[in-house]
Amino acid sequence: MKNIFRLAIAAMAFATLVPAQAQFAKPEDAIKYRKASYTVMAAHFGRLGAMANGRAPYDAKTALENAELVSTMAKLPWAAYGEGTDKGDTRAKSEIWTESAKFKEASDKMQVEIGKLNVAAKAGSVDALKAAFGPAAASCKACHDNFRKD
Amino acid sequence: MKNIFRLAIAAMAFATLVPAQAQFAKPEDAIKYRKASYTVMAAHFGRLGAMANGRAPYDAKTALENAELVSTMAKLPWAAYGEGTDKGDTRAKSEIWTESAKFKEASDKMQVEIGKLNVAAKAGSVDALKAAFGPAAASCKACHDNFRKD
Repeated sequence: MKNIFRLAIAAMAFATLVPAQAQFAKPEDAIKYRKASYTVMAAHFGRLGAMANGRAPYDAKTALENAELVSTMAKLPWAAYGEGTDKGDTRAKSEIWTESAKFKEASDKMQVEIGKLNVAAKAGSVDALKAAFGPAAASCKACHDNFRKD
Repeated sequence: MKNIFRLAIAAMAFATLVPAQAQFAKPEDAIKYRKASYTVMAAHFGRLGAMANGRAPYDAKTALENAELVSTMAKLPWAAYGEGTDKGDTRAKSEIWTESAKFKEASDKMQVEIGKLNVAAKAGSVDALKAAFGPAAASCKACHDNFRKD
C-alpha cells in the first residue's frame, strides 16, 4: 500500500500532461520510451560536446539545432517513471522512487542547465558554448551517479 | 512545377545534413539512435491516434504538443542510415540502400504527411486531426511494409 502511494506521488510529480499510466499501455513501453529519449538526447548532446571540446569544428547553426533538440528531449523522460517501471530492462535505481524529491530536484537542475546551454547556443559563440557545456554535462552525470546502476 | 520546387527544397534540406559517419562514432550507435528516434516518434504519434480514433479525449493543446514532437522526431532518423548500418540489431531491409531513391521518396512522403498533421493540430479541431491522421499513419505503414523486416 505504502509503495503504491509512493508511486502515485512520483507519477504526479513527474507527469507533465496526464499520468504515465494513461500515456503508456505497459510499463515496458514507458521504459523503452524513456531510454529512447535519453539515447536521442545523448547523441545531440555529444555533438555539442565535440564542438565545445574542439573535436569538431564550431558551427553556430549546427550548435543551435543540436541544443534545441537536447532541450526538447530533456522534457520527455520524466513522464515515463510511473508505476511498474522500476523493474525490467532498466538501470533505474530504486532511489528514483524512494527519494523522488531528490530525483525531481536532479532532473529540474538538468533542465535548467540545458536551458542555459540553449541560451549559449543562441549567442552564437564557441566560448559561450564551452562555458555552458561543462555544467550541463555535470548535471547529467550527477543524476547518473545517484540514480542509475552501472 | 510546384512538385519540382518541393523536391528542390527537400534536396536542400538533405544536403545540409552532415554525413552519418561524422555524426556517429560506430554504426551500432547510428542504429541505436535511429531506432530510439522512431520509438519516441511512435509514442507521440500513438497519442494523436488515440485522440483521432476517440480512444482518448481530444485536447487541442495536447494534440499540438504531440504533433510538434512527432514532426521534430520525423526529421532525425534519416541521417543514421550511413555505411555499415545495414547489419546488426536492426530490422532494416537491404532495399533501403539498394533502392535508396524509393526509400528517400517514402521518407519524404512521411514527412509531408506529418507536416499536414501539424497543420491539422494547429487548426485545433478533432475533425481536422482525424482527416490528417489516416494518411500520416498510411505513410508510416508504407515505409514499414517495404523497408522493414517483420
